[in-house]
Amino acid sequence: MSVTAPQGFAAAGVAAGLKSTGKPDVAVVVNRGPLKAGAAVFTSNRAKANPILWSEVAVRDGVVEAVVLNSGGANCFTGSFGFQTTHQTAERAAELLGVSAGDVLVCSTGLIGTGDEVFRAKVLEGTTRAIAGLTPDGGEAASLAIMTTDSRPKRTVVHGDGWSIGGMAKGAGMLAPGLATMLVVLTTDAVLTAEEADAHLRAATRVSFDRLDSDGCMSTNDQVTLMVSGASGVTPDPVEFAAALREACTSLATQLQGDAEGASHDITIEVTGAASEEDAVDVGRSVARNNLFKAAVFGNDPNWGRVLAAIGTTHAAFDPYDVDVSMNGVRVCTKGGPDRPREEVDLTPRATHVGIDLKAGDACATIWTNDLTHDYVHENSAYSS
Amino acid sequence: MSVTAPQGFAAAGVAAGLKSTGKPDVAVVVNRGPLKAGAAVFTSNRAKANPILWSEVAVRDGVVEAVVLNSGGANCFTGSFGFQTTHQTAERAAELLGVSAGDVLVCSTGLIGTGDEVFRAKVLEGTTRAIAGLTPDGGEAASLAIMTTDSRPKRTVVHGDGWSIGGMAKGAGMLAPGLATMLVVLTTDAVLTAEEADAHLRAATRVSFDRLDSDGCMSTNDQVTLMVSGASGVTPDPVEFAAALREACTSLATQLQGDAEGASHDITIEVTGAASEEDAVDVGRSVARNNLFKAAVFGNDPNWGRVLAAIGTTHAAFDPYDVDVSMNGVRVCTKGGPDRPREEVDLTPRATHVGIDLKAGDACATIWTNDLTHDYVHENSAYSS
Repeated sequence: MSVTAPQGFAAAGVAAGLKSTGKPDVAVVVNRGPLKAGAAVFTSNRAKANPILWSEVAVRDGVVEAVVLNSGGANCFTGSFGFQTTHQTAERAAELLGVSAGDVLVCSTGLIGTGDEVFRAKVLEGTTRAIAGLTPDGGEAASLAIMTTDSRPKRTVVHGDGWSIGGMAKGAGMLAPGLATMLVVLTTDAVLTAEEADAHLRAATRVSFDRLDSDGCMSTNDQVTLMVSGASGVTPDPVEFAAALREACTSLATQLQGDAEGASHDITIEVTGAASEEDAVDVGRSVARNNLFKAAVFGNDPNWGRVLAAIGTTHAAFDPYDVDVSMNGVRVCTKGGPDRPREEVDLTPRATHVGIDLKAGDACATIWTNDLTHDYVHENSAYSS
Repeated sequence: MSVTAPQGFAAAGVAAGLKSTGKPDVAVVVNRGPLKAGAAVFTSNRAKANPILWSEVAVRDGVVEAVVLNSGGANCFTGSFGFQTTHQTAERAAELLGVSAGDVLVCSTGLIGTGDEVFRAKVLEGTTRAIAGLTPDGGEAASLAIMTTDSRPKRTVVHGDGWSIGGMAKGAGMLAPGLATMLVVLTTDAVLTAEEADAHLRAATRVSFDRLDSDGCMSTNDQVTLMVSGASGVTPDPVEFAAALREACTSLATQLQGDAEGASHDITIEVTGAASEEDAVDVGRSVARNNLFKAAVFGNDPNWGRVLAAIGTTHAAFDPYDVDVSMNGVRVCTKGGPDRPREEVDLTPRATHVGIDLKAGDACATIWTNDLTHDYVHENSAYSS
């Protein structure tokens, strides 16, 4: 059910011919209310796609009536023509829904530089048909229509005390957000103001999508939107809602990790003993972006030297000769020297855990990444995306 | 001839059994004087190998009598035992050469965490034999003994007006220096003080080894040493010497690039129109570290969108909608939109040029990198290094 699991939402997904495969490529998610609150976080890449430039402004008043999403073209670096395409998409949806275009967000994903006349015509026609086909159980169809190189849709539902949260996501490459990652739509029928929705969304994405760093490449089109219908009539306990939204975001983030392009390992890097959470994130991210480490994991090689070499490039507080590193539970390095024999480490399971104890404080953070594989190179060299 | 091309140097390379292949793995380069000036730059990785910890102190007085180098083991994260091994290596060389141990630099390369009793015994024995075999034409043998995954030795000779510069280098992976890269020894018979040597070395490495970023991974063992014998008796013109040293360093740096692990393209990223040289370097480095861009080049795909997405993650001054990008001479992107058709770009040659005009000033910089290939993944997953 994904985004239509909570009350007060309708969705649809249609094939508009943007994908050469003929698969669904335009999705619409509509908030039926009674509340129309919304919030969104965006890529921090300074090269922003046209839908990002549009949506950043549209979300400012805290009112979100609908989100129109397309795969099959990023509409990024397509000039003023591309921006007009996004604008016209919002206007088309607004007209058909009887709302203001300024309350319709737009998301696009696909090849950068794609967004010509043909693209525009197909997106507009797809938007029209998707809105005509809106249903209260259209969440699954919508989640299929936003897929690009994803091998499977990503959906989540979390139930609270009288309210629920639904969500869908797409993303298989360029998974390194500044704020958010790839295209994500979250919905809830809990009663929240736009300000509350914004605060909850930022808190949840900060420790979920923002901790996912599959390949170190930040997208131009990332957007995570939360829409609030309030249709349950229930005002949630703030702590419970925060935990539920974090759970929904973490579920989607790890689904993205599990389907990352070409990956054969899902690597959880848990940094403990840091002087600050920022230090822990820096260290985790540095290891997550180290190609030599990532290739070693692909080869089932517990090469802790590459972990320490990656940590050494950060400005985090630590003594290089008092760091412990474990892999899948085996402490292979302690105090700047070898500990247990590397032969004891079994890296054959897809789920891989790397523990790093900086021994510099009490802060911690977890970063999720993937290994560097032949399939990653193949997928990103053989196909434009 | 490499390091023994200038007058006043002797070198040797021997097989000490550190490499399982039985190939040469210990090299010594000795300065016969009359001057014994020297300077060195080191990795800025905070995780420093024992030879770096030793050599950083040893070079401080500006006197360098000899450099002992080994492949087959990095002697990094090998604890105090490993540091003692480095210390004993310098002492062994000093005793045999009749000089002070504090004037002998040590360099090691190979697997991090390698440096046990067997390693120590072999390094010491190899040092003894190399010094016994020192000859004025031993530069080639020395350059062979420092190779690890290099497929060929890297050597250079630059002639000045009555003086010359020789050099050798090794390095095929982890090519992303903070200051220097991998193991490099440069020699000259020009007359220079240690202070002059240091200034020249820093100026030359800043625009050569420090602009080489093959895989974004910074080594724990990088060291570039310049030894000055003064044997020519000629005091060089400072501008001429600076240019010659830059030429020698650039020659070795591009030889390292051309032999980078698994690479199929040597990519020159030329950033122009930057507000500052720092901005130009930041932008070039960001593109050089973008796996999606690197994989696209491997696939001969002129994917300029990935170049812009990488630029967008920097803090450099530029307008994302007023940047030009060319590939192998074809301007594929101008002012944030497509320009010439990507079909016009031929990326099949190994030498690849990416031009980025930020239109924000007059500064420029060139970064050298490689593509991301199946062979890179294979070499770094199948073998520990």
